[in-house]
Amino acid sequence: MSDSSPLPVIVSGIQPSGTLHLGNYLGAIRQNIALANDETARSEAFLFIVDYHALTTLRDADALRRYTLDVALDYLALGLDPSRASLFVQSDVPQLTELTWIFLCLTPTAILEKGVSYKDKVAQGLTANGGLLTYPILQAADILAYTAPGRDLVVPVGADQKQNLEISRDTASRFNEAFCPDDPFFPLPEPYILDEVSVIPGLDGRKMSKSYGNTIGIFDEGKDLKKKVMSIVSDSTPLEDPKDPDADNTFALIRHFATDDERAEIAEAYRAGGYGYGHAKKALLGMIDRHFGEARERRRELAARPDDVRDILQAGAEAARARASDVTAQVRDAVGFLN
Amino acid sequence: MSDSSPLPVIVSGIQPSGTLHLGNYLGAIRQNIALANDETARSEAFLFIVDYHALTTLRDADALRRYTLDVALDYLALGLDPSRASLFVQSDVPQLTELTWIFLCLTPTAILEKGVSYKDKVAQGLTANGGLLTYPILQAADILAYTAPGRDLVVPVGADQKQNLEISRDTASRFNEAFCPDDPFFPLPEPYILDEVSVIPGLDGRKMSKSYGNTIGIFDEGKDLKKKVMSIVSDSTPLEDPKDPDADNTFALIRHFATDDERAEIAEAYRAGGYGYGHAKKALLGMIDRHFGEARERRRELAARPDDVRDILQAGAEAARARASDVTAQVRDAVGFLN
Repeated sequence: MSDSSPLPVIVSGIQPSGTLHLGNYLGAIRQNIALANDETARSEAFLFIVDYHALTTLRDADALRRYTLDVALDYLALGLDPSRASLFVQSDVPQLTELTWIFLCLTPTAILEKGVSYKDKVAQGLTANGGLLTYPILQAADILAYTAPGRDLVVPVGADQKQNLEISRDTASRFNEAFCPDDPFFPLPEPYILDEVSVIPGLDGRKMSKSYGNTIGIFDEGKDLKKKVMSIVSDSTPLEDPKDPDADNTFALIRHFATDDERAEIAEAYRAGGYGYGHAKKALLGMIDRHFGEARERRRELAARPDDVRDILQAGAEAARARASDVTAQVRDAVGFLN
Repeated sequence: MSDSSPLPVIVSGIQPSGTLHLGNYLGAIRQNIALANDETARSEAFLFIVDYHALTTLRDADALRRYTLDVALDYLALGLDPSRASLFVQSDVPQLTELTWIFLCLTPTAILEKGVSYKDKVAQGLTANGGLLTYPILQAADILAYTAPGRDLVVPVGADQKQNLEISRDTASRFNEAFCPDDPFFPLPEPYILDEVSVIPGLDGRKMSKSYGNTIGIFDEGKDLKKKVMSIVSDSTPLEDPKDPDADNTFALIRHFATDDERAEIAEAYRAGGYGYGHAKKALLGMIDRHFGEARERRRELAARPDDVRDILQAGAEAARARASDVTAQVRDAVGFLN
């Protein structure tokens, strides 16, 4: 988002990996939505649910369809404005796979074998497949497909995703050098590093993560939510004793959902003693209900109108396809396919 | 082409690798065209020029365009009947790359690393790239994209291409097992082993091959052709002495272009003595002119009407896309993309 580019193109992929939790929300979703909705940035945003990527590990058609729709509902309910950002399903833009093939032909295999996702998955004991291996090149296509003349391509990333953005930048360079060295076609995508959020603890105090089964879902509510919040691990300091808010898992969550005044007040109560973890959990429960109350309502409304959600996704896909088709046509011409 | 399938689908890729030579013609092209044109087989044929594949090694847009059009002209001039077979350019069917992505997600990387093309190219010192590595999976898509219910998919191959067909068969199986085990969608493609042609010698007596620079082009003619034929290496047996036709490079070519009577007559002249290699070369020249005379004429006519050739390719591509779109739509549904 340099000064030279008043209208950056913001590109962001969303994993359809089942129920999103508070860790996802506080770490990325919230910022992604704010960035996409931001009118003052005068940006253009493409947010897409990466079902092509999901196929690298998922072999369950019904689950993939459900996850895809669920994450669309989640984002819309959480306030993503489809009139500001194109929200769509990745596989509705098949041009991405054509770009992927072309980029693959320019990518040394050594680069693929060094990919973080690939190495991680292999280390986790998953059978390595060609999708996991070539994943970063589809990711490069995911970004470069939305190239627009004179605009920066900006990708919101956490620090741990920087390597994949490097591969996208290298892919753009390699294409430019091979086919249009005098008049580079692709810009080098730029990272927009998301604000670092301190690790969000899960119910057991470890980092909140689906793989630990210690999550609180963004749309959990009622008894289910209460049961989870009440089960957050705390130490055994008696009710009447002073407590350290900074060492407590419940307070680590309260921190993000409280107003400044509430945060100070509750921290003070921890330190004063006579305030138990049960009190803190009840306070957190109220804050979560307050924070997500409207979103829950919107999600229920949207879930009752799946066709409308599909229409929103289709409209987003049309905008994305228009750009990706244009980019792909130019790429096809540059590499020497017949018109 | 079993009895159970009266209407096999014949699928064959053509490399756009520059000027085709007599070795290509006698080894594969001639048989491919006969197979595609064959009305008695009541088959359906898809013949395509593999420009996606060419990108694995070519970085020259003008050359790729020229090679692509050239090979189309060659096949049409040599008698491929576009009303019997769909002749088209691979990249006019971008659905292939989408199928490739989906298949890649099902392919263990170990399979890719064992690919013959990949290992060969690496052994030749070419930098290994992702295209070379995943080539056999695009080849599987090239075949499986033309799946039609109840028909065999038949691929004409030389013995050295059998491994890639194995990968295509495994890809079909893997997809069926992962997504539709009870009602397999893809048939296992079957090889149609081309008649083994004895090695065609080049000008220097080694196997005729572009990489040896010892070829006679299919459409060479006039002085150029004469110069090449006259330069075919022979031994130094004097004119008047008897010669062994089976040990001579010129006769190895005469064998394929002579009538039965001519072949017997010339072999006899070799053995009788008083018949020099120069005589044999002149005879060969006449036979080549006779064999390709009409094709040269047709090629000149077609080359003067590039738009008509492009129309033929477009019509072929439409037929191919119709089938590939249908197959891809079913695949997308099977893996769980939203409709």
